[in-house]
Amino acid sequence: MDRPEFSLIDWIRSQVTDRPPVVVGIGDDAAVLQNSGRECLVATDMLMEGVDFTFPPASPYMAGRKALAVNLSDIAAMGGRPTSAFVSVALPRARGTEFARELHAGLLDLAATWDVVIAGGDTNSWNGPLVINVAVLGEPWGDRSILRSGALPGDLLFATGEFGGSLAGHHLAFEPRIREAERIVSLVPVHAMIDVSDGLAADVHHLLDQSRVGAILNAAAIPIRDTALAGDGPPLQRALGDGEDFELVLAVGAEQAEALTRGWTLPTRLTCIGRVVSEPGCWLESADGTQVPLPPLGWTHALD
Amino acid sequence: MDRPEFSLIDWIRSQVTDRPPVVVGIGDDAAVLQNSGRECLVATDMLMEGVDFTFPPASPYMAGRKALAVNLSDIAAMGGRPTSAFVSVALPRARGTEFARELHAGLLDLAATWDVVIAGGDTNSWNGPLVINVAVLGEPWGDRSILRSGALPGDLLFATGEFGGSLAGHHLAFEPRIREAERIVSLVPVHAMIDVSDGLAADVHHLLDQSRVGAILNAAAIPIRDTALAGDGPPLQRALGDGEDFELVLAVGAEQAEALTRGWTLPTRLTCIGRVVSEPGCWLESADGTQVPLPPLGWTHALD
Repeated sequence: MDRPEFSLIDWIRSQVTDRPPVVVGIGDDAAVLQNSGRECLVATDMLMEGVDFTFPPASPYMAGRKALAVNLSDIAAMGGRPTSAFVSVALPRARGTEFARELHAGLLDLAATWDVVIAGGDTNSWNGPLVINVAVLGEPWGDRSILRSGALPGDLLFATGEFGGSLAGHHLAFEPRIREAERIVSLVPVHAMIDVSDGLAADVHHLLDQSRVGAILNAAAIPIRDTALAGDGPPLQRALGDGEDFELVLAVGAEQAEALTRGWTLPTRLTCIGRVVSEPGCWLESADGTQVPLPPLGWTHALD
Repeated sequence: MDRPEFSLIDWIRSQVTDRPPVVVGIGDDAAVLQNSGRECLVATDMLMEGVDFTFPPASPYMAGRKALAVNLSDIAAMGGRPTSAFVSVALPRARGTEFARELHAGLLDLAATWDVVIAGGDTNSWNGPLVINVAVLGEPWGDRSILRSGALPGDLLFATGEFGGSLAGHHLAFEPRIREAERIVSLVPVHAMIDVSDGLAADVHHLLDQSRVGAILNAAAIPIRDTALAGDGPPLQRALGDGEDFELVLAVGAEQAEALTRGWTLPTRLTCIGRVVSEPGCWLESADGTQVPLPPLGWTHALD
């Protein structure tokens, strides 16, 4: 992937050693800290105008809401519930006070929906574009957080919702999958989970890499968002590569699949999209049984 | 003060109700959360190129260091020690990878000095100026955090270090007063504490406002940094108004003053700068005993 951030992140990781209170540091959807025997989750994301949204089509309300939502999605992916949020902004001076209030209104409304306390932050103005950073603290629904690294050969991979075409609007309005994560961890032991921001293929690769396993995805089973069906390019490619879906992908033991699907009464779609194998790598299996390697970017000539 | 952020912050505060796990939310140097009976501190600050530093005179190393240091200063002001940090950056694409590494090196070196684990973050690049947001978690040295709101009439006000002229270099190289805070809370009960970022007068006002008391500062006692003595403007005005000092100001009972000063063996200067009174407001007392009101910006015609 042509993102130089990744080599920088690898370098930063090489400079850091996790130690108490940090149980899981850089490299998962959120950090896990141990505090008096309880796990505490911390996620943080920075969104920038012109990169993560533009005005229009985004409104300041949507931008503020998204800045919190992406973090709530990270906490959900750890099998956790968010409790408090810390909001830093660099506000473009020329846009004025009403812009700033609408931005915070979007954030406050989503916080109220999920009972998250805005507990601090840093409010700045400057002559540059809008930048919002949100840090969210949370705690696991169960005793332990769910990491990216626990998938086992033989597990089945499930996904919430649909994929692809998020930039047509979903990325500014999605509901973080907190309730879905709560239901999932209440129904079955979850071996590994991740939220899809970089793209379904990329984030499945992240989960597999950290679990040191591989997977075969069932091409016909990948749920495709209607905006990916309607837009440019092969819909399956878009579902695999577009990103910003903020859906959950999880690995559970095959013997638990029935308990999960039978207990699933939420309106959000939950789909088995593939199976975990011991050989590292990721393959896409067509209806006729042929398998092609699926690179992290999600583009494979087999789908051209 | 001509900072429209303040009315926005007041509005945000009016929209938020602190509730568990948040014990102290927006409005102190850091938030206080309760977690299994233990207090957890959270501070966050966003620094922007062209506002909080410029290149040059700052180096990327200094900018990264400062982004962490201002947060460590906030944790120190709560009577706490920092434990973990979360670093989000928007890196200017044109500045390249070496810039990003130096930035993080400054941050990592300071983290190592204070045994702070870099436990997460968000690394982005864009075509805008550098923006760094750091969130730091910590815990109080004692059982309880020290707030801005506990100063009592009759208390004495102490300050670490010197004030004024910070922009000549101090703001890019200061050592957060973590060790000083530890020593202070080990020596005496501290009623209130704040770190000085907006300016000595402004931050004393913050402490007094939140404690619902007033104070008389002793003009002759205010410690003045050598760069404020050498630079433009009346040195005392600069000490009171410049800001970015990242020193601690604290209120302790008058009967504890001797225990504090006698036990003070650290090389950092610790000075009694005034006394707390019941009447709200802040006054500057000259050597001849005359008192003039001291506005938050620190400028008073009596010093012209």
